[in-house]
Amino acid sequence: MQRTVFFISDGTAITAETLGHSLLTQFRDITFRQVRIPFVGDADKANAAVKRINQAGEEDGAPPIVFNSIVDGHISAIIKSSNAVFLDVFTTFLDRMAEALGVAPQASVGRAHGVANLERYEQRMEATSYALSHDDGVSTTYEHCELILVGVSRSGKTPTCLYMALNFGVKAGNYPLTQNDLEDQKLPAFLRQHRAKIVGLSIDADRLAQIRETRRPGSNYASLKQTHWEVDAAESLLRASGVPVFNTTHSSIEEIASRILAELGLQREMF
Amino acid sequence: MQRTVFFISDGTAITAETLGHSLLTQFRDITFRQVRIPFVGDADKANAAVKRINQAGEEDGAPPIVFNSIVDGHISAIIKSSNAVFLDVFTTFLDRMAEALGVAPQASVGRAHGVANLERYEQRMEATSYALSHDDGVSTTYEHCELILVGVSRSGKTPTCLYMALNFGVKAGNYPLTQNDLEDQKLPAFLRQHRAKIVGLSIDADRLAQIRETRRPGSNYASLKQTHWEVDAAESLLRASGVPVFNTTHSSIEEIASRILAELGLQREMF
Repeated sequence: MQRTVFFISDGTAITAETLGHSLLTQFRDITFRQVRIPFVGDADKANAAVKRINQAGEEDGAPPIVFNSIVDGHISAIIKSSNAVFLDVFTTFLDRMAEALGVAPQASVGRAHGVANLERYEQRMEATSYALSHDDGVSTTYEHCELILVGVSRSGKTPTCLYMALNFGVKAGNYPLTQNDLEDQKLPAFLRQHRAKIVGLSIDADRLAQIRETRRPGSNYASLKQTHWEVDAAESLLRASGVPVFNTTHSSIEEIASRILAELGLQREMF
Repeated sequence: MQRTVFFISDGTAITAETLGHSLLTQFRDITFRQVRIPFVGDADKANAAVKRINQAGEEDGAPPIVFNSIVDGHISAIIKSSNAVFLDVFTTFLDRMAEALGVAPQASVGRAHGVANLERYEQRMEATSYALSHDDGVSTTYEHCELILVGVSRSGKTPTCLYMALNFGVKAGNYPLTQNDLEDQKLPAFLRQHRAKIVGLSIDADRLAQIRETRRPGSNYASLKQTHWEVDAAESLLRASGVPVFNTTHSSIEEIASRILAELGLQREMF
């Protein structure tokens, strides 16, 4: 059985889609066709969306589910007139919040994922640029760094740094442990002085071999012998250095980032 | 007046925070202190969270607002017992969805932002790696590219590419127009063959000068004369090449990404 799900918004639709996805993961036996319709800012666009919703319902033989986050009541009402299960992401909570806060909401469109606060937005762009210039040991000057991920090649450092920079505005660098570091069982001096900012990433050797195999098939770099040696050496080095270590094998970058920020007490707002 | 807002989850809390942020933007006159408590997976952690909630309420002299996305009913009930405005991000919609779909939800924890689907997760990591290797014209082999952002230096290409790779698994490269390209008023040959994948980014010359000034203060690169010339030349080149052009001056990378995906018809699920 297929059901169509719409994420409809006057902005990017990111809020509607994020919430919708989370809810859909709770119904694993159903195949969902997912359609995002962003920037529905007027009645014409809303009417066009209603057409698509109703058509999908006819094709499926069952009403689509609509996650709506349009702020404007009139445009929202047009969407609501479709033959669908209409879930209003905003108004459902807005009334209770207004009551609790004792003020009326402002009904401003598209603020959630626009440049609502230029200073914070620039901080985020700067952090992204910082993460790129401090990726993979390119620069090892970590004075302005807020955290440094350390681990063997392909343990998940780069995407985690980029994710934290883009989504939390955290200036994160990362350093890949070299054969020398692993043999010496010591962090290089330029890292030791920043120990409080360092977080180790580890990964199961089997999984690491798999990941490396897709990049350099048949290489020593991707061999189980090499990955087992590297992972063991890295874990003992990191633990001896007294830094926290997270295993990334079964975790997404969102989960790793969330755990790291909690561990370091970086209570940074998500963008 | 300050009010404290909690985002509480048995997973990353990303869903609760994304929805919460969107709603908070509708109350601009209130200062919100925002606290994320992820991975609340047992009663002990829930009780610790309740303590923090109640303490914040005493400090503020008003009940905190709690966005809860804990799936487990027992643990959730502990959070609900706090002295707060309790907004349940999940169960509010789950019942209506279950009714509409005719099946019961599965109450699986932490699936929303975990590695629920390994294949899709790997696609996303691969796209991120691709974006890095095709950033800023480093590689100009675009065979496996899904889209190519083209524009002058600092028009927003890199963060937009990274954002689309990380969050949508889109393989995006980007190419900075050179002085030569601008003078010739032609896209280089290695780009022309991929015209259907190209999207131009533009930006107001004044804003561009501002951004460049923070990177190279006092340089010709950051001068208004140079940015005006570059932006004008780039816009005429891009339009003559028949590619869509988006102005990034007042848009966030989320908004640009959302518009580009819609323009190219890349109906890709968000991760």
